[in-house]
Amino acid sequence: MKKVGIVGASGYTGGELLRLISGHPEIEVAWATSRKFCGKGAAEAFPYLGGFTDVVFEEPSLEKIPEGLEAVLVALPHTEAMQAVPALLERGLKVVDLSADFRLDDGEVYARWYGSEHTAAAMLQGAVYGLTEWNRERVASASLVANPGCYPTAALMALLPLVKRGLVKSGGIVVDAKSGVSGAGRSPKRNTLYAEANEGLTPYLAGRHRHIPEIRQELAKAAGKDVTLTFTPHLVPLSRGLLETIYLDLRDGAGLAEVEAAFEEDYRDEPFVSAAPAGILPAVQDAAGSNVCRLGFTDDPEGGKVIVVSAIDNLVKGASGQALQNLNLMLGLPETTGLGAPGLFP
Amino acid sequence: MKKVGIVGASGYTGGELLRLISGHPEIEVAWATSRKFCGKGAAEAFPYLGGFTDVVFEEPSLEKIPEGLEAVLVALPHTEAMQAVPALLERGLKVVDLSADFRLDDGEVYARWYGSEHTAAAMLQGAVYGLTEWNRERVASASLVANPGCYPTAALMALLPLVKRGLVKSGGIVVDAKSGVSGAGRSPKRNTLYAEANEGLTPYLAGRHRHIPEIRQELAKAAGKDVTLTFTPHLVPLSRGLLETIYLDLRDGAGLAEVEAAFEEDYRDEPFVSAAPAGILPAVQDAAGSNVCRLGFTDDPEGGKVIVVSAIDNLVKGASGQALQNLNLMLGLPETTGLGAPGLFP
Amino acid sequence: MKKVGIVGASGYTGGELLRLISGHPEIEVAWATSRKFCGKGAAEAFPYLGGFTDVVFEEPSLEKIPEGLEAVLVALPHTEAMQAVPALLERGLKVVDLSADFRLDDGEVYARWYGSEHTAAAMLQGAVYGLTEWNRERVASASLVANPGCYPTAALMALLPLVKRGLVKSGGIVVDAKSGVSGAGRSPKRNTLYAEANEGLTPYLAGRHRHIPEIRQELAKAAGKDVTLTFTPHLVPLSRGLLETIYLDLRDGAGLAEVEAAFEEDYRDEPFVSAAPAGILPAVQDAAGSNVCRLGFTDDPEGGKVIVVSAIDNLVKGASGQALQNLNLMLGLPETTGLGAPGLFP
Amino acid sequence: MKKVGIVGASGYTGGELLRLISGHPEIEVAWATSRKFCGKGAAEAFPYLGGFTDVVFEEPSLEKIPEGLEAVLVALPHTEAMQAVPALLERGLKVVDLSADFRLDDGEVYARWYGSEHTAAAMLQGAVYGLTEWNRERVASASLVANPGCYPTAALMALLPLVKRGLVKSGGIVVDAKSGVSGAGRSPKRNTLYAEANEGLTPYLAGRHRHIPEIRQELAKAAGKDVTLTFTPHLVPLSRGLLETIYLDLRDGAGLAEVEAAFEEDYRDEPFVSAAPAGILPAVQDAAGSNVCRLGFTDDPEGGKVIVVSAIDNLVKGASGQALQNLNLMLGLPETTGLGAPGLFP
Repeated sequence: MKKVGIVGASGYTGGELLRLISGHPEIEVAWATSRKFCGKGAAEAFPYLGGFTDVVFEEPSLEKIPEGLEAVLVALPHTEAMQAVPALLERGLKVVDLSADFRLDDGEVYARWYGSEHTAAAMLQGAVYGLTEWNRERVASASLVANPGCYPTAALMALLPLVKRGLVKSGGIVVDAKSGVSGAGRSPKRNTLYAEANEGLTPYLAGRHRHIPEIRQELAKAAGKDVTLTFTPHLVPLSRGLLETIYLDLRDGAGLAEVEAAFEEDYRDEPFVSAAPAGILPAVQDAAGSNVCRLGFTDDPEGGKVIVVSAIDNLVKGASGQALQNLNLMLGLPETTGLGAPGLFP
Repeated sequence: MKKVGIVGASGYTGGELLRLISGHPEIEVAWATSRKFCGKGAAEAFPYLGGFTDVVFEEPSLEKIPEGLEAVLVALPHTEAMQAVPALLERGLKVVDLSADFRLDDGEVYARWYGSEHTAAAMLQGAVYGLTEWNRERVASASLVANPGCYPTAALMALLPLVKRGLVKSGGIVVDAKSGVSGAGRSPKRNTLYAEANEGLTPYLAGRHRHIPEIRQELAKAAGKDVTLTFTPHLVPLSRGLLETIYLDLRDGAGLAEVEAAFEEDYRDEPFVSAAPAGILPAVQDAAGSNVCRLGFTDDPEGGKVIVVSAIDNLVKGASGQALQNLNLMLGLPETTGLGAPGLFP
Repeated sequence: MKKVGIVGASGYTGGELLRLISGHPEIEVAWATSRKFCGKGAAEAFPYLGGFTDVVFEEPSLEKIPEGLEAVLVALPHTEAMQAVPALLERGLKVVDLSADFRLDDGEVYARWYGSEHTAAAMLQGAVYGLTEWNRERVASASLVANPGCYPTAALMALLPLVKRGLVKSGGIVVDAKSGVSGAGRSPKRNTLYAEANEGLTPYLAGRHRHIPEIRQELAKAAGKDVTLTFTPHLVPLSRGLLETIYLDLRDGAGLAEVEAAFEEDYRDEPFVSAAPAGILPAVQDAAGSNVCRLGFTDDPEGGKVIVVSAIDNLVKGASGQALQNLNLMLGLPETTGLGAPGLFP
Repeated sequence: MKKVGIVGASGYTGGELLRLISGHPEIEVAWATSRKFCGKGAAEAFPYLGGFTDVVFEEPSLEKIPEGLEAVLVALPHTEAMQAVPALLERGLKVVDLSADFRLDDGEVYARWYGSEHTAAAMLQGAVYGLTEWNRERVASASLVANPGCYPTAALMALLPLVKRGLVKSGGIVVDAKSGVSGAGRSPKRNTLYAEANEGLTPYLAGRHRHIPEIRQELAKAAGKDVTLTFTPHLVPLSRGLLETIYLDLRDGAGLAEVEAAFEEDYRDEPFVSAAPAGILPAVQDAAGSNVCRLGFTDDPEGGKVIVVSAIDNLVKGASGQALQNLNLMLGLPETTGLGAPGLFP
């Protein structure tokens, strides 16, 4: 068994890592930190894991890193992660960082969008953006993987095949995103209280969300030029799941057949991407609980656009599942190990 | 008290009419029909109305129309409504039809979108489209008001002020719509079961929903030309409420100030429309339970569009509340009578 | 218009008071305090009230009490209320306190259950327990009304008619209570986050909840002797609503007819209590949104008990609605003023 | 791989069997029937299983049973199951029946509670009641296992250790049960529509539910005498999960220590039962998604009872998971095979 650590293990992404690794045949959690639940068993933070894990949370102290640890999954809030990651790397540990701190290539862009100077900007170029299907080889040899944001994961899985082939007309891409409330984390805030979010549906940070530069950065690499984007996230009353409805104009001469071919070519052998034939759109409940990204698309007889829908579980493919997918590669294991279960329905 | 009837009173829009009229000081329900609950008190179909209404449901037979009835609210499914309405009008009753049957001006457009011949196409031209704020005078003198669809109500309230002023660039309007499950009606269907819709979020009929021609028809009248539209509805896990996130390009030279001025001019004196200053977007829970349409808008620094958000209660402003607003006018009552209550939160 | 104040107006019970009073024809809110939203309009704390109230929240300073104020509704947490109430009374204001601070007659019982010394224990005997239907006359002439807890309201409405007639065998009453999450208040806590409470159902403080002595106190007064009680509350994934399933043994010789007669005699003229015939049990959605307590009961052929179900809206009859019912009486207004609306369904 | 069949595979328990078996290393589904989805892939009925199963639904015709099939899981409604089971047994197939048809030992009791004559009453004595932990050896050698109902599973896991030791005083056991809506099945009915069940909480069949005789039958076997029971189920707004709050009086001289010892002795080695120390009660979300039954108990200082809480996933331990647990034993496989995953949270 390969030993790994989780820093910040009592939040939702931390819990999801514990859950997934509890069934992983080659990896075990040998170190897990939580300030809030320090000294307590993981099953106190996550009673549903009682009987499935023996992990006890520790103080986040580097002195306590156990011998033989090979890698660490960092599930800290942004700005905290960039404090913790350099020291872990220095100890020779491989790191998958689930925060936003190492996703942007440019420290100044980070500073502008996140409102904090990047204190480890020199490491940004060395970090590999962990959208596994698109950076598989670089991930496998990376020391530091920046695990993608939940919204960017869903958007990029839908857009990269089209943008890299030049199928999308410049300008005008609209991503209308809907996320379950677990995406907002486990720290108590008024707007994520049950009585506030239930029977609610709230657009927020329209055109201004921090995931926009991340999406644009990766689209630009694929397109070879800048790609603009309109992006509006919404908080939706479900615990987990994320769905994006994406509107775009195809370049002249391109049609649904080209979209279908692009998805087919890029994803036909992908174990965690499922693209439906034209006209069949996924629902969020088709992806929730699993590491699968489900894609669908259709034409738009009245408006002339193409509509692409991308559905993932925000905590699995949008966070901890993809992190484990990356970790598998970094540790030389088959990418799908421990990630093969379907979700739950209903 | 003015006597009115409700045909098809045991569905959700029927129940909402019963609820609203139970507190109306000038109108009483003197006739209510339901095949399913025939002979039973309204409180059997709607236990929460026990003690608030004495209505007993009857067979939908025209012979039983009580003396002195002035108007009828028709809450039947489409195609059934067009069977029922002509006979009611013949008896001199004013009619508000909540179905789709009299909303489109052109019977052939109806036949194409609804898949049935229109059996009362001759009446389409005489029916007044009951988006009250925009057709107030015609509604007041109408015999037959076609109550708008829920999606069109939210879309038109947002778009009409902009389109009629030529502020919106041709092409490219995207309406991403999210509706609570009550919008799908009270007849048992698999996809609206609790265990199917809960923890779910399902796009459907993307680019193909029957409300598209209704929206386009009214936009074209305001614009003086055809207006295309991309429209995708989603089923969202809330009981009631409807929110539309609308993306559009302003004509060159226009900006947020023009949008703000348009909303201000058109809606400043409207009791049931509330437009926020630039940058503040409504949530669905701000509108649920009341007859208010809440509007907000913002710019989009990365994508260059304007984003307008429109939130209503699909059963109130999107159906029964607006029907009562229209009925008030048709009966010579102040438009707001019986509609003054805020919603419920949480 | 009679002027009243609300102290602690930005929580859920405060918001509910604002909502109810916004439609009250004889009372207006002339003073509302909130530390969190001080200086802001009530519609910032409660966007759904935008257009329905002009109240601006102020610092909770006694210096700012406006002239002509007649009464104050105190919606502070327990222990804070007992600090605030004496000063309000001294100024000659009538007070309805929605906290637990003045519900128990005995300061020592308070100290034992609430873990704090009662700093205004001398006032406990003068406070009237505001279960309106049972203390109507004393409420009308009271200076200080202790508004009942949500769980006690539902339990006492069901049990008082039976206990006062000696219909219930000593010992063995079981109250299994289920409450919506709004009952836990608007302060952010982990266990009331959406992602924690959704798809959840959590028993808590079984046999130990602070509402137990309150229920026992009032039952003992009616019975003329001590009445024991098993009480388990559960947090249930709904925003509002509270339902109690109550199990009891009737004294020998008594049956459903005696239960029915007791409810009939005590509640037949009550505008806010609705007791169904034997065998018909209410659901929480039959009461949510209104000030009505819905009662039902049935026999139990296999177990030999009687099962009584009591459903209320925890924020209306269980808090702010009953507070307004009491306030109406204290101000000499008809008890039902401003409380006549049904709830919302669905 | 051992080949098994599922009859009635497109309902919720059928889907859950497909999900669980999709990850089972020793069993494969070689035959699955569904009238509604006949000829379609399982992923059409359950899109979330797309990519996880290749099963295609067939007509429920015995002629089509594939060669080499060893066992059949019957997920038909009651009364349909008793038509299907005899023919399957005649062909030498082992059968786990998830319906109620073979749970009661006595055909007359069945007829009284289910309102239909039992057409295969002669087989009742041979059927083994599949509460695995309590009938493990008989299950292993059975041809026909009657899989327990969801409510009885939770109740019996809590009560059997106490009743068999004579710890519970005669009379007075109260089981207040709460179930998620998936327990009501996938056939469209009005009361399980999203808009009816959401924000709702409905007691039903209080004292009269068909699971009462099943619970009493098994308790009587353990007690060696008749055991009466008060049982009230409630429909609660969650997709899956079932929690029972059980109130009982211990016999004189017994206390929490005896309860703890009983659970400890009976369940300490059970992989799918987890009993907490005194005072810690499980929540439904601690069990949802897994095959684990979580138990907790506490005393009741005010009322003198003992309160036991039992939580399961109604579709897993309460149906398909336990069915697979039984099937494993019947096929000579380790009982836990394919059932080792924790649930999902949040």
